[in-house]
Amino acid sequence: MKTHGKPVPPGGTIGIVGGGQLGRMLALAAARLGLKTCIYNDTTDAPAFQVTPHSLVGPYDDLNMLATFAEVCDAVTFEFENLPAHAIAHLAERVWVAPGAHALAITQDRLSEKTFVEKLGLKTAPFFEVSSAVQAREAFGKLQGCGVLKTRRFGYDGKGQAKVASAEEAAKAYESFKGAPAILEGFVDFSYEASVVAARGAGGAFAAYDPPENEHENHILRRSTVPSRLTPAQTDEAKRIAKAIGDALDYVGVFAVELFVGKGGELLVNEIAPRVHNTGHWTIEACQCSQFEQHIRAVAGWPLGDPARHADAVMENIIGAEAHAWEALARTGALHLYGKTEARPGRKMGHVTRLKPRNH
Amino acid sequence: MKTHGKPVPPGGTIGIVGGGQLGRMLALAAARLGLKTCIYNDTTDAPAFQVTPHSLVGPYDDLNMLATFAEVCDAVTFEFENLPAHAIAHLAERVWVAPGAHALAITQDRLSEKTFVEKLGLKTAPFFEVSSAVQAREAFGKLQGCGVLKTRRFGYDGKGQAKVASAEEAAKAYESFKGAPAILEGFVDFSYEASVVAARGAGGAFAAYDPPENEHENHILRRSTVPSRLTPAQTDEAKRIAKAIGDALDYVGVFAVELFVGKGGELLVNEIAPRVHNTGHWTIEACQCSQFEQHIRAVAGWPLGDPARHADAVMENIIGAEAHAWEALARTGALHLYGKTEARPGRKMGHVTRLKPRNH
Repeated sequence: MKTHGKPVPPGGTIGIVGGGQLGRMLALAAARLGLKTCIYNDTTDAPAFQVTPHSLVGPYDDLNMLATFAEVCDAVTFEFENLPAHAIAHLAERVWVAPGAHALAITQDRLSEKTFVEKLGLKTAPFFEVSSAVQAREAFGKLQGCGVLKTRRFGYDGKGQAKVASAEEAAKAYESFKGAPAILEGFVDFSYEASVVAARGAGGAFAAYDPPENEHENHILRRSTVPSRLTPAQTDEAKRIAKAIGDALDYVGVFAVELFVGKGGELLVNEIAPRVHNTGHWTIEACQCSQFEQHIRAVAGWPLGDPARHADAVMENIIGAEAHAWEALARTGALHLYGKTEARPGRKMGHVTRLKPRNH
Repeated sequence: MKTHGKPVPPGGTIGIVGGGQLGRMLALAAARLGLKTCIYNDTTDAPAFQVTPHSLVGPYDDLNMLATFAEVCDAVTFEFENLPAHAIAHLAERVWVAPGAHALAITQDRLSEKTFVEKLGLKTAPFFEVSSAVQAREAFGKLQGCGVLKTRRFGYDGKGQAKVASAEEAAKAYESFKGAPAILEGFVDFSYEASVVAARGAGGAFAAYDPPENEHENHILRRSTVPSRLTPAQTDEAKRIAKAIGDALDYVGVFAVELFVGKGGELLVNEIAPRVHNTGHWTIEACQCSQFEQHIRAVAGWPLGDPARHADAVMENIIGAEAHAWEALARTGALHLYGKTEARPGRKMGHVTRLKPRNH
C-alpha cells in the first residue's frame, strides 16, 4: 500500500471517487488551494463533472479504469463510503488513498461500526446481529421496547431501515430485505439529534467543528443549526467522542459522527460517516476553513485549517421540487445548487445557509 | 444589442472573457449557484481553465471565435476592461453582455473616466489631456507641485505611469510612452487609500461592501483591511460615490471605485474598475455573498446577495516567489492559490485572508 509521503504541492491532482454534490464541493474547495481535481463517476452526468476539466467515467469496480485514474492522481479520496473493498485496495496499491481501507471497511458495515464504537467505551443504542428471520425474533426479545431493523450495508437517507414494534414485525422486516445481512438496534427515544464534523490530519492533528443540531424529515436531513442546544460540557464531550473515533481508526480526512442526545443529556453514537457530511455544509460560510477545504487539506497532507466558527448559521436542504423556487431562495441567504437537472422527489438539489452575527 | 430578459436559470451558462484569477474565482462562484461557465482566453494555460470543462481559446478580437462563444453562453461578462470596443459590440449583438459597452468604453480611458467623474460633481485630482510633449509641459505648468503622467489606456499595477517633478520630466515621460495618448494628474498627497466594491443589478438594485483600506508596494496591492480607518460618515460618503457612479453608468455587475483619502478627510476618486477587484477578495470569507457571487448574480439577472460583513478581515496578496511558502501560508489563514505555474516577479500568485471576530 502507498504510504503518505510529502504533501501534494499546488498544481497537483486530487482524485475524487464519486461526482455528486459532495465531490463537486470538494473539487471547488481544492481549486481554491490551487489543486487540480479528477472526478471518477459511474455515470456521465455527474454534478462534479461541471467544475473540472478532468474526469473519468467507469464502473466503481472496473480495476483497469481505476488504475488509469490512480495514474493521473497524486492522492485519492471518496465522496461516499460504499466502494467495494477490492476496488479500494486496488487504488491503494497505486496511489495514496485517504481515508484508508481500514476506516472504510469498518464504517461500511453497521455491525462492525457499532462493535468498534462499543469497544472504545462509547455509548450506542443496544444492537444485535440479524442474519435470519429467527435471529430477528430473538433479537427483538432482548430489546426493551421498539427497535429499528437496518441493513448492515448501503443504507442512506432512511433506505434499508424499518421501525419494528414486535418480534413478528422484526421477522417480516428482515424478510423484506431479501437476505441482506442486518442489524437490530434498540429504538432510542432521544431528545434531539446532533453531529460532530471533524478532521484528522496524516500526522494525527485533530480539528473539530462546533456540533450542529440536526432535524430530519422523512429520514432526510432538513436543517442543521449552530450553535446547538448542547451545553459547553456536552460540546466538549461530543468533540472527545469524535477524537477517540478518529484516533482509533487512524483516520485521515473529514468524518462525521451522528449523535442522539438522550433525554438525560447522554450522547449516543448513532453512525459514523467517513466523509464530508451534509450536517457540515454550514461551515462553507461560517468558518474560515470549510469542511470541504479541511478534507482536501488532510488528504493532500497539508496543515489543517482553522475550524473556528465566526457566525451563527442555519443550513437548510433544498429537496426535490423545492429547487424550482431558486430565485426566491437566492434572496434569503447563501444559495448552493448542485447542478442536477431533474428535481426528483427526495433528491438533494441544493442547500441554503443563513448567517447571523455570532451570539457568544 | 441584446437586452436583458429573464434571469439565466440554474444550469445556464455564463461566459467569462479572460481566464486569469478573477475569471477563475468568478467561475467557482457561479458553480455554487448551479450555473455553468465557459471561459474565453487568448492563451491555453489560463488558470480558469482548471475549474470548468467548457473553454475556448482565441484572440480577443477574433470575431468568429467570439460569435461561437456567444452561441454557447446565456450571458457574458469580463474579468478585465480592455477588450477592444468592436469585439464587445460584436458580442453584445449576440448575447446579453454585462457590464455594457458604454460602461466599459468610459472606464477603459482615464481621460473619459476622469471627465465623467468630474461631471458627476465628485472630487478627483486635477487632470489634463496630454497628446504631445508640448502639451505635457503646458499641463505641468497648471499643476501646483508634482504630477503623475499616465497612459490613457491599458495601464495596470503601475505600468504606463511616471511621477514627474518638472515640465522637463513631464515631456520626457510623455516621449517614453512612444505616442500613446496620456493624461497628467496632479499628485495627491493623500493620507491613505481606500476603495468601495459595489454591485448594481439589472433593475437598478445597489449593494456596497464595507470599504477596505488598501496598501500598495511597488504599485501592486499588498494588503486590504476591513474595517478601514474611515469614519462612519466617510464610509457612507464612499458608498454614495459608488452609487452615483453605478447609476450614471447604468452599470450591471460588480465594480470598484479606488479612493484617495486626503489629509483633510476628503475622498477623491482615483480610478473606476468595471469588474471584480483585488481589494474585494476578503469578501469570500467575511461576507455571506462574495464579490464574485455578487457579480455572477447581477450578470445572470438574479437578486443581489447580502453584502453584510460578519467578520473583520485582512487580505494579503501572495506575489511572485512568495508563493513558494504555500505550506507555511496555509497555516495562517484562508489560502487561495490561482493555479499559475510560474512564479514570476510581480505576478499575483494567490492571496491569504485572515478573519477576526467583528469589532463593532
